Amino acid sequence: MARTVFFISDGTGITAETLGHSLLTQFDLGEVHQVRVPFVDTRSRAEDVANAIRRAQADDGDRPLVFHTIIEPTHAKLLEETDACVVDLFGRLVAPLEREFGLVRKRRVGQAHGMTNVDTYDLRMEATNFALRHDDGADLDYGEADVILVGVSRSGKTPTCLYMALQFGVKAANYPLTVDDLESGNLPAAVRGDRSKIFGLTIEPERLAHIREARRPESRYASLAQCRREVGDAEVLYQRFKVPHLNTTHTSVEEICTKVLHKLRLKRRLY
Amino acid sequence: MARTVFFISDGTGITAETLGHSLLTQFDLGEVHQVRVPFVDTRSRAEDVANAIRRAQADDGDRPLVFHTIIEPTHAKLLEETDACVVDLFGRLVAPLEREFGLVRKRRVGQAHGMTNVDTYDLRMEATNFALRHDDGADLDYGEADVILVGVSRSGKTPTCLYMALQFGVKAANYPLTVDDLESGNLPAAVRGDRSKIFGLTIEPERLAHIREARRPESRYASLAQCRREVGDAEVLYQRFKVPHLNTTHTSVEEICTKVLHKLRLKRRLY
Repeated sequence: MARTVFFISDGTGITAETLGHSLLTQFDLGEVHQVRVPFVDTRSRAEDVANAIRRAQADDGDRPLVFHTIIEPTHAKLLEETDACVVDLFGRLVAPLEREFGLVRKRRVGQAHGMTNVDTYDLRMEATNFALRHDDGADLDYGEADVILVGVSRSGKTPTCLYMALQFGVKAANYPLTVDDLESGNLPAAVRGDRSKIFGLTIEPERLAHIREARRPESRYASLAQCRREVGDAEVLYQRFKVPHLNTTHTSVEEICTKVLHKLRLKRRLY
Repeated sequence: MARTVFFISDGTGITAETLGHSLLTQFDLGEVHQVRVPFVDTRSRAEDVANAIRRAQADDGDRPLVFHTIIEPTHAKLLEETDACVVDLFGRLVAPLEREFGLVRKRRVGQAHGMTNVDTYDLRMEATNFALRHDDGADLDYGEADVILVGVSRSGKTPTCLYMALQFGVKAANYPLTVDDLESGNLPAAVRGDRSKIFGLTIEPERLAHIREARRPESRYASLAQCRREVGDAEVLYQRFKVPHLNTTHTSVEEICTKVLHKLRLKRRLY
């Protein structure tokens, strides 16, 4: 029976889950059964979740693991009264900060991913709309762009741009390298004027063929030969014009975004 | 002079920054100067960042605050040898887990937001492509949809759908309530067959007018009267057909997504 891991929060639960996951990657636990419980902001919700923890323990025969960021002490206490292994993520980290600042923390609920500032929210929405408008070479006006991702079709440009916008508030455009662009052996005219903003994505041809096959089965577009040719030409282009670039094959969207921003020295926010 | 806060990681830095931000929301520090340093995975990078911390202290005249998730002890030690207030986010939380599991943690670098599984990655990309294809009523085939967001133009549907896809791997479509839909007083035919998947967004008319004004200045579309009418009609529709709904005005994208998934009892992943 897999051990149950609870991520419990009085807000969205994103902090609890992000950190809990990171901690679990440090251990080889095998399969775990994950339960997310956001918005535990009343005594009755806290009682419900304490009961769910007890039921999981009875069912699994193993102590559940509980990661929580509950601010209200009486609610946190209800979780600690179960027999689970309870890790108060904030509690253990706040004490050194209280000492440093000479301040006692405000016990404010749901702050971390709540809406705290309309202006930063607007910037984020503006970046998202920018990414949608400048996706796949649709709008070629790159005056406001922070970065222009280039790469062959299905190399990961679109999700990377959207993630940069939503998570970091960065205005990211993307331009697809077409077969014509690749055969010309030159940077596409559309992006040539913004050299310092260009970042290239590349990918292993085998992985690209797999992705394209799902989209257009048995097409020439998805054939390994075609993928090899396009990827090879794109890499030659990056080297010839000293375009910074990255292989996305074994790289998560988070890593791609962080590396691109880091290499281009772009300011990033985090929401 | 604002105090400098460093978020330092051997990986993307997303865990360090997410948790560091959450902790800072518990204090009223006023303005802080934030510095992100991802990919500190060599001794020389660790020395560079230790020097940057010392420089910040000299410039600010105030001790910098350092949140880090560095796994390699000799690199972490370089940070601790500065005079900054250094919080090792993993270190303080791993000990109780080691006791619980009877295991010593593996000191693996860059796991939290790295690419660990191609299948979950593919699901996430599939959800993102789904959201793009089903944005703004473009594709009305909702067979595979987990949720269909409805709402008037600019009520926050698109960013919410994209975030659900990228962050939670949920297939989210969205359908705009047009003036014709609203005047009919009925649920739009396109979504009527998928009643259990519908979730409504609403927004304060003043905020909507502000958002629309930025898009089409001085238009009837952006006028407060028009916004009031559309929002009022949408809310009547939600009530009449018992569509679960949420006001997005003071709600972050993270909160909207988490609440929608919670209300519809949708399974969520977190990347």
